[in-house]
Amino acid sequence: MIKTTAYAPVTPDTVAALADIFGADYVSTAQADLELHARDQSHHPGCHGEVVVWPRAAEQVAAALALANARRIPVTPWGVGTSLEGNPIPLYGGVLMSFERMNRVLAVHADDFQVTVQPGVCHKDLNEQLARCGLFFAPDPGANATIGGMLANNAAGIRTVKYGASKDNVLAMQVALADGRLIRVGSRSVKQAAGYDLLHLFVGSEGTLGIITEATLKLVPIAPYMGAALAAFETVETAVEAVVAVRGSGLEPAALELIDAAHAAMLRQAEGVDLTDRPTLFMEFHAAHETALNLGLETVRDICAELGAVSFRATTDTAERKKLWHARHSSYEIMVRTYSEKGFFINDVAVPISAYPELIGYIEQLKREHGVTAYMIGHAGDGNIHVEFPFASPEEYAQRQAINGMIVRKALELGGTCTGEHGVGIGKAKYMPEEHGAALEVMRALKQTLDPNNILNPGKVFPVD
Amino acid sequence: MIKTTAYAPVTPDTVAALADIFGADYVSTAQADLELHARDQSHHPGCHGEVVVWPRAAEQVAAALALANARRIPVTPWGVGTSLEGNPIPLYGGVLMSFERMNRVLAVHADDFQVTVQPGVCHKDLNEQLARCGLFFAPDPGANATIGGMLANNAAGIRTVKYGASKDNVLAMQVALADGRLIRVGSRSVKQAAGYDLLHLFVGSEGTLGIITEATLKLVPIAPYMGAALAAFETVETAVEAVVAVRGSGLEPAALELIDAAHAAMLRQAEGVDLTDRPTLFMEFHAAHETALNLGLETVRDICAELGAVSFRATTDTAERKKLWHARHSSYEIMVRTYSEKGFFINDVAVPISAYPELIGYIEQLKREHGVTAYMIGHAGDGNIHVEFPFASPEEYAQRQAINGMIVRKALELGGTCTGEHGVGIGKAKYMPEEHGAALEVMRALKQTLDPNNILNPGKVFPVD
Repeated sequence: MIKTTAYAPVTPDTVAALADIFGADYVSTAQADLELHARDQSHHPGCHGEVVVWPRAAEQVAAALALANARRIPVTPWGVGTSLEGNPIPLYGGVLMSFERMNRVLAVHADDFQVTVQPGVCHKDLNEQLARCGLFFAPDPGANATIGGMLANNAAGIRTVKYGASKDNVLAMQVALADGRLIRVGSRSVKQAAGYDLLHLFVGSEGTLGIITEATLKLVPIAPYMGAALAAFETVETAVEAVVAVRGSGLEPAALELIDAAHAAMLRQAEGVDLTDRPTLFMEFHAAHETALNLGLETVRDICAELGAVSFRATTDTAERKKLWHARHSSYEIMVRTYSEKGFFINDVAVPISAYPELIGYIEQLKREHGVTAYMIGHAGDGNIHVEFPFASPEEYAQRQAINGMIVRKALELGGTCTGEHGVGIGKAKYMPEEHGAALEVMRALKQTLDPNNILNPGKVFPVD
Repeated sequence: MIKTTAYAPVTPDTVAALADIFGADYVSTAQADLELHARDQSHHPGCHGEVVVWPRAAEQVAAALALANARRIPVTPWGVGTSLEGNPIPLYGGVLMSFERMNRVLAVHADDFQVTVQPGVCHKDLNEQLARCGLFFAPDPGANATIGGMLANNAAGIRTVKYGASKDNVLAMQVALADGRLIRVGSRSVKQAAGYDLLHLFVGSEGTLGIITEATLKLVPIAPYMGAALAAFETVETAVEAVVAVRGSGLEPAALELIDAAHAAMLRQAEGVDLTDRPTLFMEFHAAHETALNLGLETVRDICAELGAVSFRATTDTAERKKLWHARHSSYEIMVRTYSEKGFFINDVAVPISAYPELIGYIEQLKREHGVTAYMIGHAGDGNIHVEFPFASPEEYAQRQAINGMIVRKALELGGTCTGEHGVGIGKAKYMPEEHGAALEVMRALKQTLDPNNILNPGKVFPVD
């Protein structure tokens, strides 16, 4: 059983001990600092830590964990708070550990297609630096999340269909354990078969098994040629047929995104973007030669035409490509603006791609039956869909959550998962028993082994009894 | 501490209990059966189990583990014995569990690019079946290994540079735990962020944490067009420069292999294959269009010419491609034939690609200094090299092992690993403390948590005290 009670408060003595570790300037109990680290971008209510610390070195992280472990004080790591499931909210108070000051690029290994970074580096900033070597870190969750946060949540995004999720793009990490040990997991070798894969045990563990203090990432050469295509279909079914056909063609799309008719309509109305009110695929392709890119786009055009696409546009021009993608890229901001008066939450189910039409049909049916507004936007190439539910009252919230529960259950029934990329955090812990069955007990046993006092980001991943 | 003593013998009573679980026809204590499952393809001496069982269902595996755990009897899983590090040798006797009869393809999910199989399916047989759907399971270790064995060892091979290792091509598994629980890990969703990555904890654990009883694999569309290129260089350094340049071009080679001058000479002499006695790169490229393939091969030709390649051949013809690759594909058999009177062992270090020339230079230096014969063949695109050491006596073996130890140490110093794809097995356990440091204690703690009586494939992965 995971203990979540019996934590000690952060006393002035503990604050002084933390100041010894971090330096007085890097420890704060000011209300403003606690407030700044109380909530992420999700709908979950905020919660204050008792003290904020800003480590600058792995050894400080380790020392603070040893102290907190000895004193039974919770520690919650914090990147920049862009997560969408309450993952870094310090539910039980204690130490909020911000990685804002541990944001250096430690080494660019360009010939190895690797970079070693501190966890507080934001991925967009990293990619700006890497561009001069012609390389980039491929996972892109949209928001300018930190690498530490992305790894801790196994974040993914629009490029994952070709380049994988965060877990597929990390080779080695340094991790601070609950008891203050610092270990190195993985290797700078891209092939690894030496013992247990601790690297991937910590990736996606949301800071509940250890805290990432350094990471060596896999990089990808920036493709010399990029093109985009946008295709609208009468039904989600035919759009998904196109997804399967494009993936089966051997073209390896670098992005393969879907927005539903409702979302397309909202984007058109809000921004005047040139979309029909129909399920629409956004695609991107990368190639080493211009001719190869053009041939690929022609194949995609043929596939979409054969499946009766209502409209199709493609381009290899950079400005034009960015324009085509504008609606997709700004969908989150448009959603926030459109519902600035309301709250909304986003679900994150994912299924095998063949089950995508059934899942979406079911969601449409629920929307009709319950008369709720919701928008769908998804990484169709990966079978991942986000349903965005606006709500204006606690009652509406409860109803949307109940509908969300039905969607999760359907996704599980279809062989899928309750979360493709946002992580479990607070909101999905309740689905873990149903998704994992007896395997959840194994997860608990590992948690117990690595963090017996449950000081690391408590209240996340596991349902609280 | 991992206990390796105090195992109970397999008594007639235990054999009878196993016969109750598996059926009398699927349990044997015959010498011939014990002998058939005593050694893999490595140089490690064989060792008999006390009883061989052939499960046909996951529930039988689980029941046998519960029994063995209660009675403190070791259990060692067995695929087809193609591993190269003694991984399935039953060092402490006990139950040898052969997956020969659990070799069915359970479901082909063609539209999902997935297949669900029992662990005893051999990957070449699987790919023959999948060819009719235009799909394949990409990892190819050369030998016709079982899927269970490949996953347990995280096997890789010549296609890994593009398509990843076994760990990158599995989505879900059913695993039997030491105490007889059956759990499901992972999901048929290609994106997964729901809790701890148990899937990758079991992959590569060499049967020491649990036994894989079912797996859902990721498949890849067979590329419509394939081409090959073969380039010889004056030095390994320039060959590796070509590797980096080809990878940096955005071409995504499907194979990028190196054989050293000594190995090229042996292949030429033994088989009359058309090779110069120089470091030689073997490359393969996959494309969706013929024109794209040809453009790619031209780019590779330009890269190699610019780096002063001594010879270059390329083809898009299937028969010609297979001929070009013949020498590489038959290198293991040629080695076995050439040294039929001697034993030989293969090392498996891997380093970041930029360190490849230094590693190979160091190996050449050791060969000269110690006057030993050895051949190098490597997955250069991944920084993985195999040094094949023939030996004719225990003294020669000891000397080659000492040299191997120096190579491993050098690889670790260069940021690499003692094993890129063969696993730890018996031979590399001694390098684990040096490679992993304090992380090895975490691995031990996980082993202790999941297999407290150390019944699962004991004597592997961890150095025995």
